Amino acid sequence: MSTGYLSISLPNIRANFRALNTACQGRAAAVVKADAYGLGSKQVAAALAREGAKTFFVAAAEEARPIRAALGPDLEICVFSGHMEGDTDLIRDLNLIPMINSVDQLIRHAEALPQHPFGIQLDTGMNRLGMEMSEWQAVRDLVLRMGPRLIMSHLACADDPDHPMNEKQLHEFRAMTDGLSVPRSLAATGGILLGPDYHFDLTRPGIGLYGGLPFASAKPVVTLDIPVIQIREVDTGESVGYSNTWMAPTPRRIATIAAGYADGIIRAMGPKTRVFAGDVGCPIVGRISMDLIGVDVTLVKSDPKSVQLLNGTQGVDTLAEAAGTIGYEVLTSLGHRYQRNYGLR
Amino acid sequence: MSTGYLSISLPNIRANFRALNTACQGRAAAVVKADAYGLGSKQVAAALAREGAKTFFVAAAEEARPIRAALGPDLEICVFSGHMEGDTDLIRDLNLIPMINSVDQLIRHAEALPQHPFGIQLDTGMNRLGMEMSEWQAVRDLVLRMGPRLIMSHLACADDPDHPMNEKQLHEFRAMTDGLSVPRSLAATGGILLGPDYHFDLTRPGIGLYGGLPFASAKPVVTLDIPVIQIREVDTGESVGYSNTWMAPTPRRIATIAAGYADGIIRAMGPKTRVFAGDVGCPIVGRISMDLIGVDVTLVKSDPKSVQLLNGTQGVDTLAEAAGTIGYEVLTSLGHRYQRNYGLR
Repeated sequence: MSTGYLSISLPNIRANFRALNTACQGRAAAVVKADAYGLGSKQVAAALAREGAKTFFVAAAEEARPIRAALGPDLEICVFSGHMEGDTDLIRDLNLIPMINSVDQLIRHAEALPQHPFGIQLDTGMNRLGMEMSEWQAVRDLVLRMGPRLIMSHLACADDPDHPMNEKQLHEFRAMTDGLSVPRSLAATGGILLGPDYHFDLTRPGIGLYGGLPFASAKPVVTLDIPVIQIREVDTGESVGYSNTWMAPTPRRIATIAAGYADGIIRAMGPKTRVFAGDVGCPIVGRISMDLIGVDVTLVKSDPKSVQLLNGTQGVDTLAEAAGTIGYEVLTSLGHRYQRNYGLR
Repeated sequence: MSTGYLSISLPNIRANFRALNTACQGRAAAVVKADAYGLGSKQVAAALAREGAKTFFVAAAEEARPIRAALGPDLEICVFSGHMEGDTDLIRDLNLIPMINSVDQLIRHAEALPQHPFGIQLDTGMNRLGMEMSEWQAVRDLVLRMGPRLIMSHLACADDPDHPMNEKQLHEFRAMTDGLSVPRSLAATGGILLGPDYHFDLTRPGIGLYGGLPFASAKPVVTLDIPVIQIREVDTGESVGYSNTWMAPTPRRIATIAAGYADGIIRAMGPKTRVFAGDVGCPIVGRISMDLIGVDVTLVKSDPKSVQLLNGTQGVDTLAEAAGTIGYEVLTSLGHRYQRNYGLR
């Protein structure tokens, strides 16, 4: 085996769902867009259905194919991008619930699939998806007669509990939806942690299911083992990797491991990241290449056959910090060359 | 259709191969590792075989499966990571040529597949893959009796023609291989551009095939169209996207487009990147989300249905600069939600 081994703990994803669902006033849906944040939407959706999830969210209608196949015909699959041009057949055939984002989409949906379920997405200040107040006021009565399944919005700053934007969006959401007898949804993982005022009828945890911040007590979900190709002695002053960016300050033992940025190990994280040989942290040395990385294994007692980049000690948020990004991007970048295992580990 | 549309020009990949092959003293192989730098190794390898390529390189043995299926049984597929533990069956069944990197690998290969073709990878200073001088001296005579197909090494600084490392590695490579009657390979794309001294019998262009630097006259290979979900008016002082990082300085029209960092649009490039609506460059505003990006379409005359992130005007190296990385990472990050088309465009 000459590629990495990515172990995805479905039991821990289920445990994270359970914890977030229990914390909610209403019930929790499961966000499985972007291939379940890179972890495999088919496997994750099936596991969460076994855990009792009844509603799933994807970004684009196409993403629902493997999920519908895994879930069977009945559970709800909602589409954040709504009813886009060309989506009608997929929405009908896969029994999807588009979250209608605009009057254009509303007209498209009403004309193409007049009896088909839908939800409404409102914009409460993020200016990203959904109808704004004026649009909503213009079509609200019509929409209510059509019987939407859900009215939702999305928070821009929920990861920062003290940000005034949260209360502002909550206030706007209530102003747009109070008194309507339609189920409501505002919170994703960050919003759940803001407390019950933000929960309404349905929450939409995503990153929290997959072990990432802001859900600090999430169970870790991914372990990544990378095989060692060879180990060499490097003398003082010798360089390792592209452009000679690293030079050995003293004689070192350098392992070349079989993964790189083509596997989603973000190139920018190189200088600040370690891999683990057992308990020993081994710094990455030199530039991360497309398929190869040099690591300093001088302190490891016996030559390791593989090392870990992700484990219970070093999670996606640690890597994200080293790469100057967020755990979400570390997850969605995880590559397709890894052997993937969905066991208990 | 609610996802992006990635168009990959096989004719331009073939033209880039032709140009690089013509520039070489020897002949050019084709590097199709990392799924042909994210563009689809099956399609790319088949197209390059039609262009006359006879030798292909992958990073890991597993990567050869779709390529062998596309190429038929005869063309050469070489594996940079060599003969690793667990690779024997794949190497035999897919008729692969492992580039042996160490004495350990040499023993493994000789024991497991004594009659099976192999090559040798030498380290000439990059300290990444391959045998060093002392190792090589110890096993050279044995290796030569076994009949290697190729002896290769890799340059660490070829993208910088003035770097003294290039000549140093060339000198080391000659010292290790002059006078042996085995075909030799040292240069990838950058090395080809260093001139004929670096070419030897076989070159190994990768990035140059796919339209990236340092092959400045490469034909562009990828075009990426992203559909617009909705367009909204935003007043002065309103913010767009996560954490309110962008605020409208004057009233603007903002389009939300259906792609994000889960599609390999590296989050870090956000503040410096434009998409194109026809000829009009439209800046990205606010943070790139997982599946969505806000763009300022105020200057576009009629509402665009889609915009382009990659095209003949804006290539992978422009995006790489905005993201603080290299074009290679932009390519290998290209996502799997896009509809992919291999037409003439």
